[in-house]
Amino acid sequence: MTGCWHAESTCKTRRCLAEMLMKRGYLSQPQSENCSLVIEVPFLEYQTLSVNTKELMLISQIRADLLWRDEELAWNRSDYLFDKVTLPVKNVWTPEILVTNGISSTMKHSSSDLLLFWNGTVVHSVIINAKINCEINLFNFPFAGDSCPVAIQTWSDGECGTKLNFHSNQVMIDGSHGDWQTDGISLLQQEHRDDRNYILVELSVKYLNPFITLMLPSILLVLADVVSFALPLGGGERCSFKVTLVLSFTMFLIILNDELPGDSTCGPIIRTHFCICLVLLVLSMLVSMMLTGLANNGSLIFSCWSKKGSRQENTGNKAETEDEEVKADISVIKLNASEGDSGMLKTLVDFVEDLKAQKAESEQYQKIAQKADKIFFWFYLFFGTAYFIAMFCVMTLYKCTVNHFEFWY
Amino acid sequence: MTGCWHAESTCKTRRCLAEMLMKRGYLSQPQSENCSLVIEVPFLEYQTLSVNTKELMLISQIRADLLWRDEELAWNRSDYLFDKVTLPVKNVWTPEILVTNGISSTMKHSSSDLLLFWNGTVVHSVIINAKINCEINLFNFPFAGDSCPVAIQTWSDGECGTKLNFHSNQVMIDGSHGDWQTDGISLLQQEHRDDRNYILVELSVKYLNPFITLMLPSILLVLADVVSFALPLGGGERCSFKVTLVLSFTMFLIILNDELPGDSTCGPIIRTHFCICLVLLVLSMLVSMMLTGLANNGSLIFSCWSKKGSRQENTGNKAETEDEEVKADISVIKLNASEGDSGMLKTLVDFVEDLKAQKAESEQYQKIAQKADKIFFWFYLFFGTAYFIAMFCVMTLYKCTVNHFEFWY
Amino acid sequence: MTGCWHAESTCKTRRCLAEMLMKRGYLSQPQSENCSLVIEVPFLEYQTLSVNTKELMLISQIRADLLWRDEELAWNRSDYLFDKVTLPVKNVWTPEILVTNGISSTMKHSSSDLLLFWNGTVVHSVIINAKINCEINLFNFPFAGDSCPVAIQTWSDGECGTKLNFHSNQVMIDGSHGDWQTDGISLLQQEHRDDRNYILVELSVKYLNPFITLMLPSILLVLADVVSFALPLGGGERCSFKVTLVLSFTMFLIILNDELPGDSTCGPIIRTHFCICLVLLVLSMLVSMMLTGLANNGSLIFSCWSKKGSRQENTGNKAETEDEEVKADISVIKLNASEGDSGMLKTLVDFVEDLKAQKAESEQYQKIAQKADKIFFWFYLFFGTAYFIAMFCVMTLYKCTVNHFEFWY
Amino acid sequence: MTGCWHAESTCKTRRCLAEMLMKRGYLSQPQSENCSLVIEVPFLEYQTLSVNTKELMLISQIRADLLWRDEELAWNRSDYLFDKVTLPVKNVWTPEILVTNGISSTMKHSSSDLLLFWNGTVVHSVIINAKINCEINLFNFPFAGDSCPVAIQTWSDGECGTKLNFHSNQVMIDGSHGDWQTDGISLLQQEHRDDRNYILVELSVKYLNPFITLMLPSILLVLADVVSFALPLGGGERCSFKVTLVLSFTMFLIILNDELPGDSTCGPIIRTHFCICLVLLVLSMLVSMMLTGLANNGSLIFSCWSKKGSRQENTGNKAETEDEEVKADISVIKLNASEGDSGMLKTLVDFVEDLKAQKAESEQYQKIAQKADKIFFWFYLFFGTAYFIAMFCVMTLYKCTVNHFEFWY
Amino acid sequence: MTGCWHAESTCKTRRCLAEMLMKRGYLSQPQSENCSLVIEVPFLEYQTLSVNTKELMLISQIRADLLWRDEELAWNRSDYLFDKVTLPVKNVWTPEILVTNGISSTMKHSSSDLLLFWNGTVVHSVIINAKINCEINLFNFPFAGDSCPVAIQTWSDGECGTKLNFHSNQVMIDGSHGDWQTDGISLLQQEHRDDRNYILVELSVKYLNPFITLMLPSILLVLADVVSFALPLGGGERCSFKVTLVLSFTMFLIILNDELPGDSTCGPIIRTHFCICLVLLVLSMLVSMMLTGLANNGSLIFSCWSKKGSRQENTGNKAETEDEEVKADISVIKLNASEGDSGMLKTLVDFVEDLKAQKAESEQYQKIAQKADKIFFWFYLFFGTAYFIAMFCVMTLYKCTVNHFEFWY
Repeated sequence: MTGCWHAESTCKTRRCLAEMLMKRGYLSQPQSENCSLVIEVPFLEYQTLSVNTKELMLISQIRADLLWRDEELAWNRSDYLFDKVTLPVKNVWTPEILVTNGISSTMKHSSSDLLLFWNGTVVHSVIINAKINCEINLFNFPFAGDSCPVAIQTWSDGECGTKLNFHSNQVMIDGSHGDWQTDGISLLQQEHRDDRNYILVELSVKYLNPFITLMLPSILLVLADVVSFALPLGGGERCSFKVTLVLSFTMFLIILNDELPGDSTCGPIIRTHFCICLVLLVLSMLVSMMLTGLANNGSLIFSCWSKKGSRQENTGNKAETEDEEVKADISVIKLNASEGDSGMLKTLVDFVEDLKAQKAESEQYQKIAQKADKIFFWFYLFFGTAYFIAMFCVMTLYKCTVNHFEFWY
Repeated sequence: MTGCWHAESTCKTRRCLAEMLMKRGYLSQPQSENCSLVIEVPFLEYQTLSVNTKELMLISQIRADLLWRDEELAWNRSDYLFDKVTLPVKNVWTPEILVTNGISSTMKHSSSDLLLFWNGTVVHSVIINAKINCEINLFNFPFAGDSCPVAIQTWSDGECGTKLNFHSNQVMIDGSHGDWQTDGISLLQQEHRDDRNYILVELSVKYLNPFITLMLPSILLVLADVVSFALPLGGGERCSFKVTLVLSFTMFLIILNDELPGDSTCGPIIRTHFCICLVLLVLSMLVSMMLTGLANNGSLIFSCWSKKGSRQENTGNKAETEDEEVKADISVIKLNASEGDSGMLKTLVDFVEDLKAQKAESEQYQKIAQKADKIFFWFYLFFGTAYFIAMFCVMTLYKCTVNHFEFWY
Repeated sequence: MTGCWHAESTCKTRRCLAEMLMKRGYLSQPQSENCSLVIEVPFLEYQTLSVNTKELMLISQIRADLLWRDEELAWNRSDYLFDKVTLPVKNVWTPEILVTNGISSTMKHSSSDLLLFWNGTVVHSVIINAKINCEINLFNFPFAGDSCPVAIQTWSDGECGTKLNFHSNQVMIDGSHGDWQTDGISLLQQEHRDDRNYILVELSVKYLNPFITLMLPSILLVLADVVSFALPLGGGERCSFKVTLVLSFTMFLIILNDELPGDSTCGPIIRTHFCICLVLLVLSMLVSMMLTGLANNGSLIFSCWSKKGSRQENTGNKAETEDEEVKADISVIKLNASEGDSGMLKTLVDFVEDLKAQKAESEQYQKIAQKADKIFFWFYLFFGTAYFIAMFCVMTLYKCTVNHFEFWY
Repeated sequence: MTGCWHAESTCKTRRCLAEMLMKRGYLSQPQSENCSLVIEVPFLEYQTLSVNTKELMLISQIRADLLWRDEELAWNRSDYLFDKVTLPVKNVWTPEILVTNGISSTMKHSSSDLLLFWNGTVVHSVIINAKINCEINLFNFPFAGDSCPVAIQTWSDGECGTKLNFHSNQVMIDGSHGDWQTDGISLLQQEHRDDRNYILVELSVKYLNPFITLMLPSILLVLADVVSFALPLGGGERCSFKVTLVLSFTMFLIILNDELPGDSTCGPIIRTHFCICLVLLVLSMLVSMMLTGLANNGSLIFSCWSKKGSRQENTGNKAETEDEEVKADISVIKLNASEGDSGMLKTLVDFVEDLKAQKAESEQYQKIAQKADKIFFWFYLFFGTAYFIAMFCVMTLYKCTVNHFEFWY
Repeated sequence: MTGCWHAESTCKTRRCLAEMLMKRGYLSQPQSENCSLVIEVPFLEYQTLSVNTKELMLISQIRADLLWRDEELAWNRSDYLFDKVTLPVKNVWTPEILVTNGISSTMKHSSSDLLLFWNGTVVHSVIINAKINCEINLFNFPFAGDSCPVAIQTWSDGECGTKLNFHSNQVMIDGSHGDWQTDGISLLQQEHRDDRNYILVELSVKYLNPFITLMLPSILLVLADVVSFALPLGGGERCSFKVTLVLSFTMFLIILNDELPGDSTCGPIIRTHFCICLVLLVLSMLVSMMLTGLANNGSLIFSCWSKKGSRQENTGNKAETEDEEVKADISVIKLNASEGDSGMLKTLVDFVEDLKAQKAESEQYQKIAQKADKIFFWFYLFFGTAYFIAMFCVMTLYKCTVNHFEFWY
């Protein structure tokens, strides 16, 4: 074996040097007297691959240049003429960088070779893919935005292990794919802890898509519901129109819930808003239905038993008396058939007056229903507008805050 | 070779010690006289990644610190100055921890290096991802909650193998993502079995989303169905309104079934409830349709042949007799064309009385239909309300229990 | 090297024995004179992870305890004091068990260590995940059930290789997840072939979900279609009602086809049934539409040209003659303007009689349409009921059989 | 080392022989003087796992028995008594078989051991999973069928490498899963190229599912559209009926496009057909709408300004003159209040004649609209039928051909 | 060892040579004096596997032939008779080629063996799969097209590393799968940087599918909305027709948004266009609703309180005065009961005149509503047409440009 080590010094080519260094086989971590190693990170590139709104999850990719010193791999430049050499990654020790708050975090070597300098300095670059749980504040959705920390650490157990030393060069690329916009990143350190570095990623929803898909149709539906009070009460068109609106709104509520996560501390207020809108739409539909019933029958369905009964008794009595009269008239007519045409004319007049009376009753019902309808409309418009203004203020002014650093306890 | 072993004692650096320990190459399990090894678990961190309601599956991540003793890796502190050293994980034996009741369970090392103390104590930490079948009790869905065991074991065959010794430090993090809330965890041991440890995870549904998506619209639909009795019978609007409600309800039933698992011992009662509601809605639709037919034709569709026939015969007879009368009248008029205007007036009066008779018949039909409608409405309202109260009691009071420990037979 | 082998006999600890056995490095299959090895399977645990109805695929997990003899790993208990030792899996040969009829089949070691006894007996356990194509008989869907074989074999080429010897201990766990119920398993062997073992898995559909999602709504839709004959013909409500039913039924047909696989020998009869129902619904819709046209215009659309033309000629003639009469009347009136009010009265009477004639014609058309409607209804009801009874008999009584053993040719 | 080789000849057991052969460590390809090796494929089993209609992709599984000769692994039967031995796969060289036109193609060993004969013949079997782009001819969808080549090759660079020699034993199993039927396979060779073997897989769509889901409903919709001309023009029911049909048809168009791939040389003609049908449906809807407007107002919407204006002027003039007459009458009545009832009668008669005139005008409009409607219907029916017949001929008779061998340039 | 090296020269077979070369074990990069190595790429085959429109992602597969020189693997043809030999890939160093702007990029060897020539030239081929973020310009969607760079590089750190030298042979295969068409590729180099090679891939949307699914139905919907002005105002059919159109259009908007990515610099203008269309449709619906109200009640809903009040007062007054008159008449009739039939006739006449007045008022309202409707229609048609022409010009003429080379900063 000693002969082999001597044989090394006879290397004349760079490749021979590389093979000689590989044969040393140092695969354990370089560890000095104080049992730790500093990894320099001169450059870092961050990219948000996607943000899952439903699961509140952030998928990131980080490319980092690493630089550390492995003294056992150094060589004497007087023995060998070269000051750097290319080595396969798997023949030397490499540090492992992880995203601490990642559900999953994998590090890959960006190349299968790395560069070694004569003094043992190793230059390498790695790619880290991480899936990070981040309870993004969605209170003001679809105008929401928040900052998520991506904690970058290496393995370290007390004094032993490795430490990261970030330089200030970091770059964010390609921030505008998907439903979220990455507005910026900043490399920070938790106070009083030099081993807790994180990238603070500023995210904001691209509001155009959810606005067009959810907000715009729902606003138009509510507007159509208000204007649909212009439709006549009697015929049932208004009710069928309103039930169409209600069912469409339900569809939008389902779409909204499919896109948004379950309830949490800073859940989106727009869900509550949609629920209230749905209840308002249903309320206006029910009232229109009852007023349609009122305009047709002169009674609401719920007070049906008593009032309708009395009305029918009246009608019944009236009908009976009318019948009697009619019979009387008819008998009269038959008796006085010879008396002239006045009996027959009376029959006609009776029929017309009967029609008139029915029409008058019906018009009275309709007048009551229309008055109730008008009153309800103005109440609905007033309170609806007030509610919308209040909701708008809450949505734009209230700020909800979430502590994103609970994983460091 | 002996020279090599001697050469070890000459190590002056920590790295040299590490390389020397790696070369010993002990990759088999440390096994004492009694053939087993105790693994200490001083710290454990549990996280529920997601809960699949449809498949009744729980996806968990457990991070555990492990600590065990590998005496063959110990060294004499008089020979070497260091009391701990960093070693690559793949050069020493490491225990494998699994979730017993997991469909799949994988253990990863949280770092590629671990810490070794001079007396052979190894400190390491691992990450376990497991997919666990847990027949969660969904009887009271969407207000359901249950506890699922996550059994943590190592390999052990009788006396040989490894044993886990949990300390009481466990932490649950980030319990509120997704559709389920993780309310708490507790580390327990099956009675009389010190090798059967499990984490009992308390889960509860975040009820807001299913309530808004399923319960609220279905309540509003049933309410709209009840109020739709206010719509007039005759015109067909009520039927088209009710069929819209029925189809929307069917849609919610389909959505419900897409979200919930198949039938099991503690299947969600809300599915039965939705079915009964659907049948009620269809019943009310069918009754309204038949009463519309009654109001228009004076007959139900099913008793059509006999009654309608007789009615038509009557009408026929009446029409014939009327025809005869009319012919008579007309002949009279023709004869008495010179007699004055009374004949022509009689024609008018006959027409009006014909109208009157038709209207009276039609009104009588409508009166019968309305009375039947009213009776059905009150029955419907009464039994519906009673059913709703009963269902509410069952849903809130009845507790269904599932044995989650069937995998340990 | 000889020194090394002697050095083994000096082992005093179990670990030293393990390391010594590992160094023997026997990674080829233990093969006796007859070139084969028997693997005992004392215990087997089967679990159905999921059944894919659409792809007719079964995903299974099998945990098996294995036991075989590797004589080269035996030791003399007089030399070493221990009668068993723990060894890493990857340092000894292990058998590979596969599911023959699996599309994919992977075997994992359930632990990274195994137990070795002094006589060379190795005890190990493995987990097999397999995806199996099984053409499940779905003829009676959603009340379908079938048995699928899961063939378990090891590699064997003629006389060489390994053979499985199953003991009768097998357990099925957790059979009720997902849309299918695993009713039972039995470990069988193909006749006259001792190397062809299979687990026969009895599966049945959990019928509640498909019944509620598909059957119940479709039955209610057909029922609503029958009852909708009660709606009046003339107004068009019945047609719009029926087209709603048809479109909803189409939706259910699409949902059904999304859930069920393509046509095969034992394809689900329910698909044919749904198609026939759809055709029936469309037929009743088309007939209602044509009768609506008949009631309004007195003609079917198809016999339009000839009959309508003649009718119109008649009407035209009649109108002309009426016109002449009217002109005559008017001329009379103009002539006899001074004669009194009888002329004006005649105008009124003419108008009324014109109305009467139109009404009579319209009523005649409606009477014909209603009669045709009634006849069609009873035909529809009769043949529909007969069809339903026949289909019910076929669905419950006919048994379709599939040969599941085609993979063994 | 020489001692070791001598030690081999002392093997008495099969296992010893196996271990000895493994230690030879020949992991490079057996290469004779002409630098190539022939791999015999005595048996081949093909299975279509799935066909993706949308992506025009074929997922296949091929199980192949391989047989080749590795002379360096031969032994002298006089030295060792055995004529075959089991070896682990990873200790000998194995060929790699790939699907050339596969997007992805992976080969797995079907067992971890293989059989070696004394003369160096190696018997092994492998499983190849491949995803193959195949531009299937879908012109006649859903009655489409085509043949896709699955090219099987091994690595070969000019004269060096391996060559496949297929025997004629091939089996196709389980051809009826999923949406496509595998009708047969045949093992072929490109002309004049003995290194280009391929399996020609005959595929055909299982037409039942797409027929039921797409064709049947669309035929019924078009039929309903034709019959809906029976509905009366005036009331608006026909328009609402037709818009329902149009929207449903759009839904089927979307479903069709979701299932079919983008446009290519042999794109499905059914998509064009659906588009034309949609345009026809919309055309018939628009015409019905305009005729409804004509029947109500006596004018089409587009010629609105001029004609309607003139009509209104006429009406206005008429109304004015009528008004004047009425005023005159009224004045006359007021003057001649004492003259008797004839004035009042004249009022009635004027009203009736006014009604009559309006009715006549309205009937005239309706007559024009109905005539136009009838003409359009017969045109629609005639050209629609002609189009359907032409499309049917194209669909059944025209054959589109695709060159599937473009990957071999 | 020296004996071994001598023993090599005694190789007589190609395999022996291969085994000898493998034993040299040169796994580090061949590095000459200038520390870099040139990799020749004589042939390159590009294939677009799929384009994800939603995520703006391109999935590509590149097959490349590589050729480089590894002098340490050369042999003297005088010693060995062979000029080429087959070697396993994993026993020699191979370069790693990556797609620089890929989110993920993996290189696989297309075969497990490669070809080595006597002078050390290595011939190999690799397959690179890459997922590339490319912010495709979708401004003119569905007629969009753009060019995406696929940057191909090897690892190189300053002077050390490898360099690619592309020859001009490149082939694109199979460009027409999926929703995008690959129109062509060209191999380019960034200016002044010989290490920055990229394939520029020209992509264009296959416009047929999105045109049929999105554009055609939306055009037909807008057309139907315009023609629906032909429907009569009064009955409510027009409103229900228009609300159906609006909801369908919303559905298409949702489908559009599901297929297209979030807003970016060159976001598709068709989304804006759809939003404006939706607002136009809703506007026309709201106006129709208000005009329906006007036609029925003589007032818009918003000016309801004042005008309606006054109208009702008028009506009230009129009604009261009429009532008085009627009462007067009736009293007169009762007084003059004996005076003859003229009183009764007057009752009839009063009724008829009452009807006439109501009708006149109603007709006046309708005339106002129709005039407003006609004015709105022409405005709507004019501005709609103008907007459509403008949008068409913008869509076809405006070119948006995206810088695709931001990843090279």
